[in-house]
Amino acid sequence: MSGNEIETLIKIMARLPGLGPRSARRAVLQLLRRKEVLLTPLLQALSAAHDAIQTCSVCANIDVSDPCSICADPRRDPKLICVVEDVGDLWALERASAMRGYYHVLGGTLSALDGIGPAELNMASLMGRCDEGSEIILALSATVEGQSTAHYLTDMLTGRNVTITRLAHGVPVGGELDYLDDGTLAAAMQARLPMRDF
Amino acid sequence: MSGNEIETLIKIMARLPGLGPRSARRAVLQLLRRKEVLLTPLLQALSAAHDAIQTCSVCANIDVSDPCSICADPRRDPKLICVVEDVGDLWALERASAMRGYYHVLGGTLSALDGIGPAELNMASLMGRCDEGSEIILALSATVEGQSTAHYLTDMLTGRNVTITRLAHGVPVGGELDYLDDGTLAAAMQARLPMRDF
Repeated sequence: MSGNEIETLIKIMARLPGLGPRSARRAVLQLLRRKEVLLTPLLQALSAAHDAIQTCSVCANIDVSDPCSICADPRRDPKLICVVEDVGDLWALERASAMRGYYHVLGGTLSALDGIGPAELNMASLMGRCDEGSEIILALSATVEGQSTAHYLTDMLTGRNVTITRLAHGVPVGGELDYLDDGTLAAAMQARLPMRDF
Repeated sequence: MSGNEIETLIKIMARLPGLGPRSARRAVLQLLRRKEVLLTPLLQALSAAHDAIQTCSVCANIDVSDPCSICADPRRDPKLICVVEDVGDLWALERASAMRGYYHVLGGTLSALDGIGPAELNMASLMGRCDEGSEIILALSATVEGQSTAHYLTDMLTGRNVTITRLAHGVPVGGELDYLDDGTLAAAMQARLPMRDF
């Protein structure tokens, strides 16, 4: 049996993605057993993050400064803006060092089912960021929602003097052909490239 | 890219059992995105637990009071003491409502390899808790370390007027025979019971 404070902590931990009630209990037990080396540092880190984090007013990234460290970086290419659904996607692209420009975080995708229209997303401010001659890369998920959002943005930006691109579809690097779904295989075949490019 | 506070938080979260670097990043992202409904409550719960938790001076359980809520419960059977390796085992037995007595948490098992002897464990105070005629249930793991700890405790308690018992081995409830290991099957066969007991 455990006290009320411990039960509350387990319940909140269980709401984190990847943790269920059972693993939350294990994590909390470990926290309580190793108070000095785990609980205290976690408490300090959470408290510091809680006080410091803010949403970037330019790109809607989450960071400890506003504008965020990416928007404040002068070495990036100002003619490249990568539109992503979510901060997690931005983090993934940064980890892959796949982007040398700036970002624009939508905060989701259009979804008639969930009642998410253009006004619910961070779309309006994208217009103001599209300088003449920039490239807008739509790095959205290859799902129905992601693709309809991409089409909506393409329509919205048409008429402005910008290039609109999307990520390539194809065989994942390191992936084996016979595990791939038909759609990806068909897309990879259609987008095949001459060998001399490599 | 993310600020230093966020990286620190991810690193500490990744040290929790069940969370690796990837899932810690997902958990932190979720915390940051849902600051009001997740980060703030977690911070408060951790802070409350940090301030309140203590180790019970009687049984070494972790709780928000000393003596813990179990040791302070007068409705339990004072003639029953269940010896467990760890607070997690105590929680598991309490969840199963398997124990109507009190507990004694050793804090580990004897292990020559890791240099853990009787002095490193919470064993000495067990002697003072063994009243005449009590039953000491050794609910230790069915591992080499657990069993050698059980034998050590049995030797230590012999001569006192107490009954020493251990948990039964057998087929897990809901388990299928052909998935069971040979040792469990042999133990279950040897400890077979007449049907009329059920």
